[in-house]
Amino acid sequence: MSRIVYLNGDYLPEEEAKVSIFDRGFLMADAVYEVTAVLDRKLTDFEGHVARLDRSLNELGMAMPLTRDELLEVHRELVKRNDVVDGGVYLQITRGAPSDRDFVFPDPETTPQTVVLFTQSKPGIANSPAAKTGIKVISIEDLRWHRRDIKTVQLLYPSMGKMMAKAAGCDDAWMVEDGKVTEGTSNNAYIVNGNKIITRELSHDILHGITRAAVLRYAREAQMEVEERAFSIAEAQAADEAFITSASTFVMPVVEIDGAKIGTGTPGPVAARLREIYLDESMKAAI
Amino acid sequence: MSRIVYLNGDYLPEEEAKVSIFDRGFLMADAVYEVTAVLDRKLTDFEGHVARLDRSLNELGMAMPLTRDELLEVHRELVKRNDVVDGGVYLQITRGAPSDRDFVFPDPETTPQTVVLFTQSKPGIANSPAAKTGIKVISIEDLRWHRRDIKTVQLLYPSMGKMMAKAAGCDDAWMVEDGKVTEGTSNNAYIVNGNKIITRELSHDILHGITRAAVLRYAREAQMEVEERAFSIAEAQAADEAFITSASTFVMPVVEIDGAKIGTGTPGPVAARLREIYLDESMKAAI
Repeated sequence: MSRIVYLNGDYLPEEEAKVSIFDRGFLMADAVYEVTAVLDRKLTDFEGHVARLDRSLNELGMAMPLTRDELLEVHRELVKRNDVVDGGVYLQITRGAPSDRDFVFPDPETTPQTVVLFTQSKPGIANSPAAKTGIKVISIEDLRWHRRDIKTVQLLYPSMGKMMAKAAGCDDAWMVEDGKVTEGTSNNAYIVNGNKIITRELSHDILHGITRAAVLRYAREAQMEVEERAFSIAEAQAADEAFITSASTFVMPVVEIDGAKIGTGTPGPVAARLREIYLDESMKAAI
Repeated sequence: MSRIVYLNGDYLPEEEAKVSIFDRGFLMADAVYEVTAVLDRKLTDFEGHVARLDRSLNELGMAMPLTRDELLEVHRELVKRNDVVDGGVYLQITRGAPSDRDFVFPDPETTPQTVVLFTQSKPGIANSPAAKTGIKVISIEDLRWHRRDIKTVQLLYPSMGKMMAKAAGCDDAWMVEDGKVTEGTSNNAYIVNGNKIITRELSHDILHGITRAAVLRYAREAQMEVEERAFSIAEAQAADEAFITSASTFVMPVVEIDGAKIGTGTPGPVAARLREIYLDESMKAAI
């Protein structure tokens, strides 16, 4: 069955959803995106995603083409029309399709932005078997551009990283710059020592994860200690636990880095507890 | 009048040339491109562009979807159908449009690549007035990813750089990393001292310019000295001359960097001579 997707005001079968070859999202990666998780037919952390979208657009001198309420309506309509119980809604906004290719930004008055949303159904995502076994990661050099805080579609290197991980028999890659881990290919990275959670501080070097912000808040509320600083692969390999967070994996234990087992090589109690708290609280607050 | 463009085997009016929203060129900047100059209805440096395209595709694990002869035929057909005298042919190849968004590469057996070509008409491009006055550049930090030798569509930052230049009343930006110029936003950068031409050596840090290779060859043939090494903005500002090269600007003098005049503040003799030689030789060898 074909999905119904949203494109510039229209709800269309996915096969009919096409953009001009002159779209700057296609020719120049001049586009930003968000992914909002759906749990039990409801949107999690919706306000956080809208706020970050607004920030990404601002940083690139793009306007917000729909209001928060309009965005919510489109998200809800797509979840309903596609009967999504668990999964996510992907949203992308580009600087539009001018009449020709040019490095100079088009005039927003004559070139409307392109807005695309579609759903991805992932039944039972909250009970992912991977959360019980944990995932294995490799480390790779971080070759991305230096404004990773802007959530652009320049995802070629993260995609290459995921392929490198796959080729090594692993699930994901942690990227390393100047000897320290920045983040995973599509998630933030953490280590745990005792009651302390360590994760890189916010800067232009990493994505300002919406799930990251929520998880750190819940951790502090649960009397865990949070230290925001960079760490190395060696430090991670010697830690009690490691995990990642993202809108699509929530809190996911990491049990092996570059072939070295973390702790016992099985998911640790801190990651498990944070995952439980995050899912409970997110479902309570979902809209 | 609407252009005729090429998309996956079809010649179409440009308004009808559309790609799926699931195309990886649109969602993940998973695409490479080339621009071949057209002078007097002929293609310049065609073999060089095909060779670099092949290299870019190889680096990303993508196949070459058309043979050299097929590519030549499409280029020529577009030039003819659109009556292009001077200008260029843009070519983009993406990893195709799989049935859903995923960081993991799609299976090439089931997901054909997307191939797009279109022309840009620029009458009298060989006699550009800018070549007589020279262009002004600003310097900006180089924030791009670290595989600039692969000609991907991750052009958001170069595009932002062009806008920064425009806002400063200039024509382009030279990007600087670790105190040294890498290249311009869409061209290679050079300085001249006496009979010596200095330009950054080839590496992952810069695009391996097709025009760069030709110009350096002609310079050596004309008994000029060529030194391939990085230089700073301060060194460039103190040089006798500066210029850029690219498939669309050929050899273009730079007369001001960050507000400081280069030499006399007018195009110098070396850049002028190299432009003349390059245009003469390119037109002779054009196919």
